[in-house]
Amino acid sequence: MPKHTIPQTTIYRLSLYLRALERLEKEGKEYISSFVLSVKTGISSHQIRRDLSYFGKFGKSRLGYRTNILVKNIRKILGIDTHRWKVALIGAGNLGRALFSYRGFRERGFFIKAVFDADPRKIGKKLNGIKIENIKNLINSAKEEKFDIAILAVPADYAQETAEKAVKAGIKAILNFAPVRINLSSAIILRNVDLSMELENLSFHLSKLK
Amino acid sequence: MPKHTIPQTTIYRLSLYLRALERLEKEGKEYISSFVLSVKTGISSHQIRRDLSYFGKFGKSRLGYRTNILVKNIRKILGIDTHRWKVALIGAGNLGRALFSYRGFRERGFFIKAVFDADPRKIGKKLNGIKIENIKNLINSAKEEKFDIAILAVPADYAQETAEKAVKAGIKAILNFAPVRINLSSAIILRNVDLSMELENLSFHLSKLK
Repeated sequence: MPKHTIPQTTIYRLSLYLRALERLEKEGKEYISSFVLSVKTGISSHQIRRDLSYFGKFGKSRLGYRTNILVKNIRKILGIDTHRWKVALIGAGNLGRALFSYRGFRERGFFIKAVFDADPRKIGKKLNGIKIENIKNLINSAKEEKFDIAILAVPADYAQETAEKAVKAGIKAILNFAPVRINLSSAIILRNVDLSMELENLSFHLSKLK
Repeated sequence: MPKHTIPQTTIYRLSLYLRALERLEKEGKEYISSFVLSVKTGISSHQIRRDLSYFGKFGKSRLGYRTNILVKNIRKILGIDTHRWKVALIGAGNLGRALFSYRGFRERGFFIKAVFDADPRKIGKKLNGIKIENIKNLINSAKEEKFDIAILAVPADYAQETAEKAVKAGIKAILNFAPVRINLSSAIILRNVDLSMELENLSFHLSKLK
């Protein structure tokens, strides 16, 4: 099946499978059935088999999938097997600084190579050895560094114009943390992180307890 | 269909539908077809109808769903119609401070009523008028405030013990931002926010461009 027909939700579930499989691999589990993976992730075995079927065969035997092969393949599908992705972080406020020191990114092959801000009080200061650059340098800096991804951690009112600057700088993928909708050409890969969605998921379940 | 059989992913999609519907409502769209909602959210009409079918009828006519009724009902399902949820924020580092000032929470009925930290340099200081309390006060503070939700924005190494403190304080729902797996009784509603999953979603799509 051609890759472009793969549902968005399948990609998210692959990330969930990967996390569970990595833990199982650490625990020394050589084989894993879709039943066990289902218990560990809370996703039905049927859905797991369906998701994996988009990507061909994974060495499934009577014992189940080989954990290490499945890990390797999912990392490859997600583009995090060998590639080191270059990330430009835009916004050095509280959220930007938190993302900068977020330990999960490097482990997965995402390297923040530069940090930008528009605030003169921040520009020139250092975050763990990286100097905060003027956002006006983004295009020049991108020529040298060839950023793959921009993370936007700017106030909502600046998100649209900042995203447009990133696109002008040749960046193809944007992860937006500002709680606002951004409009860009459909050629740009844009994802919005909406932190209140997670709270709504909790309140759905809490409402049932009341 | 009883509520406990509703898939987790349906709940997340309800949050997505809600955001699209609220925008359409602002634009003055009185009726909305599942086709238009599909275009706006990128989720198939079939999936939308299936998700909504878990919750009964929504006044669908030949013109489609009534936007305001659908908005009202989804807010009710998600537990964010009238309820004001009391949130305890644990961790006043960069991420904690970013979450504290995140503007989407209040709009959705989530109110951070207290902030806790273990660092003596932070305890006693103020964040927008709220004094940062010693984490040791959590149980006492919870007796008074009756927090519904705890948001954990602590370092990974402290996440498990901090979550256990929240449970001891009677908090039933926990949103964990630390990049580590927490084990709690299944009676506690626990969600983990893994910020690197969003980047993996981008890298999947970027890999296809290469």
